[in-house]
Amino acid sequence: MKKIGVILLSGGLDSTTVAAQAIQGGYELIAITLHYGQTHSKEIDAASVIAEKLGLIHKIIDVSFFKELAWYSALTSPDRFQVPPDRDVDEMAATIPVTYVPLRNTFFMTMAAAYLESEILHHIEGEGGSPNEVEASLFIAANAVDYSGYPDCRPEFYDSVRETLKLGSKIGTQYDIPFDVQTPLIALSKAEIAQLSIDIGAPTELTWSCYLGGETPCGTCDSCVLRANGFAEAGLEDPALPSQ
Amino acid sequence: MKKIGVILLSGGLDSTTVAAQAIQGGYELIAITLHYGQTHSKEIDAASVIAEKLGLIHKIIDVSFFKELAWYSALTSPDRFQVPPDRDVDEMAATIPVTYVPLRNTFFMTMAAAYLESEILHHIEGEGGSPNEVEASLFIAANAVDYSGYPDCRPEFYDSVRETLKLGSKIGTQYDIPFDVQTPLIALSKAEIAQLSIDIGAPTELTWSCYLGGETPCGTCDSCVLRANGFAEAGLEDPALPSQ
Repeated sequence: MKKIGVILLSGGLDSTTVAAQAIQGGYELIAITLHYGQTHSKEIDAASVIAEKLGLIHKIIDVSFFKELAWYSALTSPDRFQVPPDRDVDEMAATIPVTYVPLRNTFFMTMAAAYLESEILHHIEGEGGSPNEVEASLFIAANAVDYSGYPDCRPEFYDSVRETLKLGSKIGTQYDIPFDVQTPLIALSKAEIAQLSIDIGAPTELTWSCYLGGETPCGTCDSCVLRANGFAEAGLEDPALPSQ
Repeated sequence: MKKIGVILLSGGLDSTTVAAQAIQGGYELIAITLHYGQTHSKEIDAASVIAEKLGLIHKIIDVSFFKELAWYSALTSPDRFQVPPDRDVDEMAATIPVTYVPLRNTFFMTMAAAYLESEILHHIEGEGGSPNEVEASLFIAANAVDYSGYPDCRPEFYDSVRETLKLGSKIGTQYDIPFDVQTPLIALSKAEIAQLSIDIGAPTELTWSCYLGGETPCGTCDSCVLRANGFAEAGLEDPALPSQ
């Protein structure tokens, strides 16, 4: 089997761990990083360094226009909203936070899938590969445990995405190749992800998780707090933080 | 009920007809036109004129980056493929043609849905509107009759899109507002669409359907042929063509 995979690589702990795991699983992996504007630009730099370290083909795509459409969110209209600086983990799980970006993961998955389908079509129609000997996998580091507030981080959403991509594509309908949407972290706690990242030798030290764009992680945003709690629970030092 | 709708307006006969019909159905309609590069740029000009004529808010968004991802197609990589100039209508229906763009309609629907969700969230959370008194509709002029080769023009695909959008969104999960995906042309022949367009007084004369970008429609591409056959079968003059 020829195993072709596309991963959404943000430059954070989670997607970097998934990338390292997919490579170890024998996938010909291509990374794409989608960004919309200045928010998270530190993550993009991290994604480049990580992709290079892992030897991946890497496409970085500016999808700033998406902010115009998915505008009702603290991440796409930062002037309109404030990212809550210090929310309790339990509170995060209770409601969908203002950092929810409308249909972001649907958008991201569709982008990755369009690229993956192009590569698979090229392999079959351009290079004469057999449709029966190809696997088409999409990797996304969605997580339903710490971020259960986000609707597009739940397994039932990804089940539906698999179906939609199969029904709406040429590889799904003409060649009967399903989109194998893989969400290996979806049921893991942040502590388990931190542990996994270290265990498999992912380049954890190169990752960036903070929602803000400072020189060093702010330590107080949702993402920093979740990450710090994860490493603490796992009893591990975070290799991305300066040693104290 | 407050009926908010977003339509994917290409500038062609079909989407223009759907737009006119939605306005007559009482929707507060917003039009978006997504384009990727020079292909079809005549359609964009047509879309602008049509949106103005119909009094719609209109967003034109350059999604050229999509060509980099969905690259294996005659429409996104014209140098690699040739648009077949004179295909038989029966032949078109038998296989998925090279003008299929990987996941294009999934992408387009996601874009329209992200915008629609933002508008609905703003209405509810920003303006205090009631979630029980809002309809959220997406209009796309997909058609399964003439273009049955395209997987993303079939009703079963749109059923799956409805489910994915609901499961992956805040309005779907927190406010229980479904995405009412409307494909009013999906079961109509081109002749029926031509007839409908004229009957409801859509600005048919402003539409552009040709795959090529010449001064006047080429008359020989798939799209020109289908359109000409449609008007001929309906026994109508095409008001967009110069009178003979």
